[in-house]
Order: sequence, then C-alpha cells, then structure tokens
Amino acid sequence: MTAITAQLPTPQVPTPFTAEDYRRRMNHAVDRAVESGLDGLIISPGPDLVWLTGYQPSAITERLTLLFLVPGLPPALLVPALERRDVEAAPGAACLEIIDWLDATNPYQLATMLLRPNGRFGISDSAWSVHLLEMHGESPTVRFCPLSLRVPMLRAVKDDNELARLAMAGASADEAARAILRLRFTGRRERDIAADLAELLYDFGHERAEFTMVAAGANSADPVHEAGDRVIRPGDTVLMDFGGTMHGYGSDMTRTVCVRRPDPEVVRVHEVVRSAQEAAFRAVRPGMRCEEIDGVARAVIAESGYGEYFVHHTGHGIGVSTHEQPYLVEGERQSLQPGMCFSIEPGIYLPRRFGVRIEDIVTVTDTGGLRLNNADRDLFVVE
Amino acid sequence: MTAITAQLPTPQVPTPFTAEDYRRRMNHAVDRAVESGLDGLIISPGPDLVWLTGYQPSAITERLTLLFLVPGLPPALLVPALERRDVEAAPGAACLEIIDWLDATNPYQLATMLLRPNGRFGISDSAWSVHLLEMHGESPTVRFCPLSLRVPMLRAVKDDNELARLAMAGASADEAARAILRLRFTGRRERDIAADLAELLYDFGHERAEFTMVAAGANSADPVHEAGDRVIRPGDTVLMDFGGTMHGYGSDMTRTVCVRRPDPEVVRVHEVVRSAQEAAFRAVRPGMRCEEIDGVARAVIAESGYGEYFVHHTGHGIGVSTHEQPYLVEGERQSLQPGMCFSIEPGIYLPRRFGVRIEDIVTVTDTGGLRLNNADRDLFVVE
Repeated sequence: MTAITAQLPTPQVPTPFTAEDYRRRMNHAVDRAVESGLDGLIISPGPDLVWLTGYQPSAITERLTLLFLVPGLPPALLVPALERRDVEAAPGAACLEIIDWLDATNPYQLATMLLRPNGRFGISDSAWSVHLLEMHGESPTVRFCPLSLRVPMLRAVKDDNELARLAMAGASADEAARAILRLRFTGRRERDIAADLAELLYDFGHERAEFTMVAAGANSADPVHEAGDRVIRPGDTVLMDFGGTMHGYGSDMTRTVCVRRPDPEVVRVHEVVRSAQEAAFRAVRPGMRCEEIDGVARAVIAESGYGEYFVHHTGHGIGVSTHEQPYLVEGERQSLQPGMCFSIEPGIYLPRRFGVRIEDIVTVTDTGGLRLNNADRDLFVVE
Repeated sequence: MTAITAQLPTPQVPTPFTAEDYRRRMNHAVDRAVESGLDGLIISPGPDLVWLTGYQPSAITERLTLLFLVPGLPPALLVPALERRDVEAAPGAACLEIIDWLDATNPYQLATMLLRPNGRFGISDSAWSVHLLEMHGESPTVRFCPLSLRVPMLRAVKDDNELARLAMAGASADEAARAILRLRFTGRRERDIAADLAELLYDFGHERAEFTMVAAGANSADPVHEAGDRVIRPGDTVLMDFGGTMHGYGSDMTRTVCVRRPDPEVVRVHEVVRSAQEAAFRAVRPGMRCEEIDGVARAVIAESGYGEYFVHHTGHGIGVSTHEQPYLVEGERQSLQPGMCFSIEPGIYLPRRFGVRIEDIVTVTDTGGLRLNNADRDLFVVE
C-alpha cells in the first residue's frame, strides 16, 4: 500500500469547536423545542449529545447519562459519578451543570426532578427504552415524543466549521476511491479489498474507518452485502460503499467497478444509475422537498425500465452520524435548506446477477447543490 | 511484539450454535415472559437479538428491525427489505418468520399488527425510544415494560457452549495480561500500552479488542480514564482494564502494576483490594444474593478505612455483551445460580493520587465460584 499513498495531502486541521459553539447549539435546540410546543429536550449519549456538548462517553451502557435542556434553566447533564471527570474535560462542559449519581442510587428520581409534571419533552431517537420507561414510571404525567419527529432537522443545517469537516472527510474518501482503482482485484477476496479501503481511509486522514462494504458479482445485487470470502474474478461487478469519520464528521461514498471486461448490461445499468444520480444532484436547491429529489432519481430509473430494482431511498443526511435527517424518501415533505448535507445514492440491483450504486455526499448552497465527493463517476475497469 | 507472542496457544474452535439452540432460547424466553405475566417480548438489535437468533445487523440504524416473541405464534422478525438476505443467512433464521418492509412504507403499522391490543409486552432495554414511541402512537392500548426488569436474568445463566466461549475469552485475556508485563512501560505513553494490549488480545485469539483502558499515576484515580498521551514514569501506578470478544462472548479483566518502585501505600491499597476481591470470590455460591457479594467486597474495604474510595458496584454480568445482568450492587436481590458469569472488580481510588482495581470474570458452579481469569493477582513491578 505504501507506493500508492506516498503522496499524502498536507494534513488540514479544522478550527476547534468552542464552548460558545456548544452554547449556541443548545440555545438553538431550546428555541426549536419551544417553537414546537415542547417543555424541553432530553438528550441521550450518541450523535445528539456529542453535537450539543462535545461529550461522548467511552461506551453507551445501562448507566444513565442524559442532558436536560429546559427553557429558563441552565443545561443539566446527569451522569454516573464515575464519568464526572470525563464530562468536565469535554469542550462544552463550561455550559453545563453536571449532576452526578452513584451506583446503588436511583438516577431516574433525579431525572424526573428535572422534568415539569404534565410537561411534554422531546427525547433523542436512540435513547434506550429502559431509560424512557423508567422515567415514565417515576413521573407518569410527563409525556415524551421522538426528538427527530417533533423537532425535525435539528442538526441538519451545518455551519461553516461543520461543512469544512464534511468536505475534508469527503476529499479523504475521494482519495481512497481513486487509490483503490490502482490495486489488483482479480484473485483477491472481497474482504481483502475491504481491508485495503479501510487502510486507505486511515492513510488519507480518517480517524475511523466505519464501514467498507465490498460486494463482488452476484453479491453486489444485495444492497447491504458485507465483505466476505468471495474471490473476485474477471467479469465481476464490484460495488464498494465505504466511509468513516474525520474530525468527528462522516464520509460515505459508493463506486461500482468492473473487473477486466465490462458486461454490456452492466455498462447500460451503470449509465442509468449515473444519470439518475446526476439528475437528482442537479435538482438540489433550497426549497425543494426531500421527496422531490428522491422522485427525480426514481423517475430516471423508472423510465429506463429498471424501476422495480431501485429498492431503497435515494439518500440520508450525514454529520456527526452517518444516517440522520434529512432523508430523501417518498413522504418526506421537509424542504432543503442551505447547509444541509446528505447522500445521493440511487442503485439498481438485479437479483442473483449484479448491482450498481453511485453515491456522493452533497451539500445545499444558496443556489443549488455542491458535491463533497468528486472522484470520477465513470464505470472503471480494474485489474 | 513478535517475540512474546511466538508461542500462541493451539486455536480452539467451539461447537457452532445450531438453529435448535436458538429455538430453545426463544422458547425459554416466551416461557419466562408468560410466567412474568407478559403477552410477549419485543427484541431489538443488540445483545438480546444476537443471543436469541444469531442475527446481528451490520449497523443499528433508524430502520426498524424487531423480533416479536408471542406465545402460540412463530417468532416473527420484522426487518428492512434490504436486510432480508442477511437475516436468511443467520444461524437462527430457520426458526423465524421474516416480515420485511420497504423504505417509504410505515413499519410501525406492521409492528403493531403483531401486538395484542391491551397486551403487555417486555421490550429490549436498548431498543430505541423512537421505535417504542412510534409503536405506542400506532397502538396506544399496548403497554410496554423494560425486558431486564420484568424478565430478569434472561441471558444470565450460560449453557456449556457459552461457558466454553467465556472461558476461552478469559484465558486469552489472561495471556495478554501476562505478556504485557514483559514489555517496557517507562517512557511510553498510556496509549502505547493500550495499543499493545489490543494487539495482544488479537494475537491470542480475540476477534475484537473492545476496550483497553490504561491509566498511569494520578489518572488511575479516575475509574473510567481513557488511555491518553500521559508518559509513564518510574513510581507510577498503572491500571489496565481491557477486554473484547472471542467467538461472540466477552472478556473483561483488570490488573494494576507499579513501574520500577512500588510506593508503600500502593502496596497497602493493592493488598486491601486483592483481599476484597478474594473474599467476594469466595462468597460466590448458588443462592447468594447479588448484593451480598457486593457487600462482602465493600466490607473488606470499609474495614481497611478506604470505604469512601470504592465508588462503583462490585461487578456486572458478561456474555454476548460486556455489561449485563447480574449486577453485583446494593439493592439487587436476585440470587446467584449455577452458570451465571460476572466480573468481581473492587477498586480503591484516591483522588489526584492513584487507584487500584483487580477484576476477574467468575462463573457460579454448583458449589461455589470458578474464576475464568487466572493471571496472577500480585502487585507486579514492571520496567
């Protein structure tokens, strides 16, 4: 691998997020909650918490950690006493009132003291059910609703610092996408290519390679196939979907290649997918509804006669998590706004034969869309 | 690292779990649910699902996946259509009715068709709140309760195959614990030792090194410190808590060492912790309550005068997840049964000075306890 990564780009370091950034985000979240008729928000470890406070526990466990954002009160983070020191080291800690609890005490009583009886609170989508049910048990008059449905798009519009990080992650993934084409595919297993992709992501600056899906031949007809022991042969289609995080923000891209000789139908299908991806990208502009972008990609594929083989939505948002709002899917009426970032990833999957997907991350500008992935989208023939 | 791992143990391969194993577990879960007055169980991706079906999606996402276990009906797994093929490849798939749903359709309507109106269902602790709240929205008369509280200890008693895997994981971690002592500590960073521990876990057969906590000097006074850039110096106490998975089952052990010269108080504290750990281990036998084991460890430390510095519970269960029931904590009245597996890990943490913890995984036999970690528990002096 050394030869192909000898010319690494100059490392770029983004501006660190400050306590002021986190304060602004928390204030924004409270404002949005109030607008939505809520009495506050309950935030669990995961993407919501890391975005709002910079705090990410080393593991998400049964020990209760919750952030309470209530209008008129300072943000309060309930944490296991064991983790107080870690929280104090988080970049947003200066804005937080830290309330800790000891093993063998009941943290849910503490939690419900932070909630107004009869109040209505939004709670992080991925908060554990046990925590929700135990809070409900302690305080049956409090009503809970899913954060993403009641306060949609909370993290969806990225600021310049976030966009810079997403652009760095995208450029790094592009380098990996280009470098992998120069490696030998024939005779190697899917998992070998997957390992190469992970190494390339690290080489080009990712702090974490989270997924490196490689699907060869008929396996590429499975949209979520995981790399296995299948040996890659001449004539195979190979679908590669990979990404991770860089400076805390995600990458996610897909390219499909042919080994040595392209099958004519693969060439045709690839061209349809590329056209669909291009058409959806060109449709991006502020005010378009998410489902309209999905519809544009779907129409191109339907016109080509492959409509029934495009079996998933067109895209998902990306930021501190890899799957988040906005979702480009039928029924999503939310409108695009400048600063939103999401994948555009149409695909066609012919059962037991092959599949093709092309995916870029795109951000919305004032006038249209801007791709954060720019590696070539032609059908490459690899060795 | 090569020199010290040249003599790897002969790889052991456990008997694969069969569809029959998963059928037995699912039947057992249904029986336990009925005994507990429930109308069924709702199981989300994570340790419950992998234990019951062998299925683990490549990522836990916003797309709904739930297993429904209802008396008198075949187990039904609701999954995104994209993942059907992966589910069909799972070892427990033969026992499952697979119901898939497409993007842009409402999976919660399908989910609630599997639930009896006015019924009471236990739901996996870590199921996402958004899924619970959306099911509640579709079917407001269904009542939900946390699985671990209503059907406690569902996965706590391990069968022989599970015990064999936990024993392999423990023996592998022991080898890592022994090998790390032969490396140089002085002048290296915590994160370097952490990387060595991870490599050793892989070398000795782990499929995943999940955590390698290394805390030197005053950092060891933080029970959950993560390895950082702190350079290790002569006179430091170094606390190492590490583990991962082997054949799907977890390891988790802690040893505390001194660099070159032991401080007399560290020697004293280490001896107290070792006595507490030994006393708790000797107290293990069927019928003892979990909180009694915690009490035994706590009493030894309290008698030594360090009681206020033992700031966490004595232990947690382990299996397909690293933290699960039984918890050895004040207030946990459940009784130990043969086949249960858990950590015994008392510690003393003197703020801004140092901390000591000793942790082994222990299983309950018909007559007492059996350690699955056997690396020496003396206070080692490393270079």
